[in-house]
Amino acid sequence: MVILNETHDPSLVSWLESANLPSTDFPIQNLPFSIFRKRESKELFRGGVAIGDQIIDLAALNAAGIYVGVAAKALAATSESSLNIFMAMGEVYWSALRLELSRSLREGSKDKTTISNYLIAQVDAEYAIPATIGDYTDFYASIYHATNVGRLFRPDNPLLPNYKWIPIGYHGRSSSINVSGVDFFRPSSQTIESNAETPTYGPCKRLDYELEVGIFIGKGNEQGERILIDEAESNVFGLCVLNDWSARDIQTWEYQPLGPFLSKSFASTISPWIVTMESLAPYRTNWIRDEADPQPLHYLESENNREYGGVDLQLEVLLETTKMRKNLTPPVQLCLTNFNYSYWTVAQMVTHHSVNGCNLRAGDFFGSGTMSGPHKGSEGALIELTKGGIEPVDLGNGESRTYLEDGDRIIMRAWCEKTGLRRIGLGELSSTILPAKLDYFG
Amino acid sequence: MVILNETHDPSLVSWLESANLPSTDFPIQNLPFSIFRKRESKELFRGGVAIGDQIIDLAALNAAGIYVGVAAKALAATSESSLNIFMAMGEVYWSALRLELSRSLREGSKDKTTISNYLIAQVDAEYAIPATIGDYTDFYASIYHATNVGRLFRPDNPLLPNYKWIPIGYHGRSSSINVSGVDFFRPSSQTIESNAETPTYGPCKRLDYELEVGIFIGKGNEQGERILIDEAESNVFGLCVLNDWSARDIQTWEYQPLGPFLSKSFASTISPWIVTMESLAPYRTNWIRDEADPQPLHYLESENNREYGGVDLQLEVLLETTKMRKNLTPPVQLCLTNFNYSYWTVAQMVTHHSVNGCNLRAGDFFGSGTMSGPHKGSEGALIELTKGGIEPVDLGNGESRTYLEDGDRIIMRAWCEKTGLRRIGLGELSSTILPAKLDYFG
Repeated sequence: MVILNETHDPSLVSWLESANLPSTDFPIQNLPFSIFRKRESKELFRGGVAIGDQIIDLAALNAAGIYVGVAAKALAATSESSLNIFMAMGEVYWSALRLELSRSLREGSKDKTTISNYLIAQVDAEYAIPATIGDYTDFYASIYHATNVGRLFRPDNPLLPNYKWIPIGYHGRSSSINVSGVDFFRPSSQTIESNAETPTYGPCKRLDYELEVGIFIGKGNEQGERILIDEAESNVFGLCVLNDWSARDIQTWEYQPLGPFLSKSFASTISPWIVTMESLAPYRTNWIRDEADPQPLHYLESENNREYGGVDLQLEVLLETTKMRKNLTPPVQLCLTNFNYSYWTVAQMVTHHSVNGCNLRAGDFFGSGTMSGPHKGSEGALIELTKGGIEPVDLGNGESRTYLEDGDRIIMRAWCEKTGLRRIGLGELSSTILPAKLDYFG
Repeated sequence: MVILNETHDPSLVSWLESANLPSTDFPIQNLPFSIFRKRESKELFRGGVAIGDQIIDLAALNAAGIYVGVAAKALAATSESSLNIFMAMGEVYWSALRLELSRSLREGSKDKTTISNYLIAQVDAEYAIPATIGDYTDFYASIYHATNVGRLFRPDNPLLPNYKWIPIGYHGRSSSINVSGVDFFRPSSQTIESNAETPTYGPCKRLDYELEVGIFIGKGNEQGERILIDEAESNVFGLCVLNDWSARDIQTWEYQPLGPFLSKSFASTISPWIVTMESLAPYRTNWIRDEADPQPLHYLESENNREYGGVDLQLEVLLETTKMRKNLTPPVQLCLTNFNYSYWTVAQMVTHHSVNGCNLRAGDFFGSGTMSGPHKGSEGALIELTKGGIEPVDLGNGESRTYLEDGDRIIMRAWCEKTGLRRIGLGELSSTILPAKLDYFG
């Protein structure tokens, strides 16, 4: 169920001026969570909530004993160096803390002086992965992406028969998920040239990004118990942005029959802020399966899911090359798409994942899959945008790309906006490709 | 490098009689590690070492302050509720503790009285997963299994062209790995009948086991750094037995294009004891790639790997049906095979996994893949043994099986034995299939 409450009132304003700017991702209606500390310090990482251009230090606020009851218990859990314990508490705790923070931040609140003492400017902060991720599952929920990529890998058979029945997903690698700002080396592995008989070992030549929505599980389920479709969203803590970097040449050679492996496991990057499902409530939309398509099996189907299953969340990819950085010219937009293009809802992903008795744990992480849309400019990966590396993208400054080059920085952003509602954002992520290590090829 | 030292001496005997019986898995030459506590107690789980039919309580031994130096530091780490910290210390620490324990357990040792105070009978113990598993990777390293199964899934194309070049693997699910003795419900998900147009939702009808060797990573690598082939085994803590339960009908419908998902993620079962790579040293064999096959690319190739890459480890599957339990008749052997049938070595798996910069962490876990051999009786899964469910196995008591039934218990064992050497074992695992939950199909 999606419920609107006083925290969603678009007319709320904060005593913190930067939270009231129309451009901010973090107005008082948002209140996302992260794990942070002062940049380049030896401070302990702890929970924070974004408001305007500031972060509320939740550990300090907890030490000050500002709240009582459920909200105080929730606040204490956010003082930890990861959000797992807070996530495992469930939506009653998440919601209680959110409500108290919203009230404390409103214009006229008696808590203004207290909270002001515990603000840190976002420009002075650095972030950690917000939760210890036990398992990472990557879905494949955009039918446009599945068809575009399927056509390149299997020209005769782009969309497989199971696609419209199952929220297709696979297990990803947890250890190499980094937070925004962490760069990585171009990966190496085996690849094979078309028509060659033997593979060679060397750096990836077809490095790509994938624009995805990241989904953090809050409460989990016991092994052997499934999560019903109408209970599924109570188990979801919130959303972030995910770049699931992909080495296409490594993927082509390795992915059959068991799926992608080294082509994905070298790095994934997430944005530091988790926007809670509660914050997103005003932006929920209905979710309609095309009448020509099969309707979902009953365990993946409910009135709530049809009425509120969608999230009107805009998603953007920008590329900044070394030359752009040198010339101080702005990054170039490569993609603008929307989470509403998803063929499956978040609730359907959670329910399907657990229907065999597989246990989800607090802090487990899902990727939506590359969230491409149906129109030009909504392709969530270069492999789609360049039709498999055949049609280079003109960057407008004399440069072009088929796949990514060393020094390229990919920036991803996500936000919700709609007339009559307060715009909220998920923040952004960025990460830069470092050259492959040369000593690997001696 | 595989080095023999005084702990491997086959003539060593212990002051503990049960350790000297020829049938024991756990003579003084073995000394495997687990996490245990007294059965059905509220005791804290802590580290233990098996000797004969007893367990040495390492936390109690640590509290007694029996050792000094490196061995004492190692012992302190084994007092934790998981072995991750001990594993991360590296082989110098693992080896130092092993040596001290070996000396303390030898006939005539002055430590007999001290150690005797801290023994718990294995029949009185219960076990936990020995390490918190961050990521679980399942390989596919038996070419016999890959060919047998490939023939069923892709009759025209059983062995894909990458198989002889890449140690094929994929990410598995960590959360649902259980230790021996934990039973599980028959999983449910979508399946499709052959020639049907639409799938249905219900319990798995083709439930199978997979006999694998489990590999625990000790020390890991930093993200972006690779592990060289001759350093790979220094990063491996030891081996156990793994049953990677598989729902074949779910797998058939879901596995393309991204690989197995719900067909595997409902449960995997491991044996409680980790036998260290050092213990296995006397049983290392050379590893020879057939001359007709492609030789490995240089990063997967070394003299050490050729000389010592193999492990002569026998592997067995037994089935006990409800009827056998009722009639007190012994379980029936379904498979006897050997880890030496592996097309890839443990070192090659570790090196390939890290060659793209993917970081391995202490406690990460690999499965070898179903370790089928070339001859009848060495098939590591029912799907191979019954040729895809076509040829039932006669159990000799009037019962037969194509796939597993509710109440079936699968037992797996592994051991090394050779003339002139002391037999050592990995112990066993067992787990029983509980009926699917009926309320799932209302």
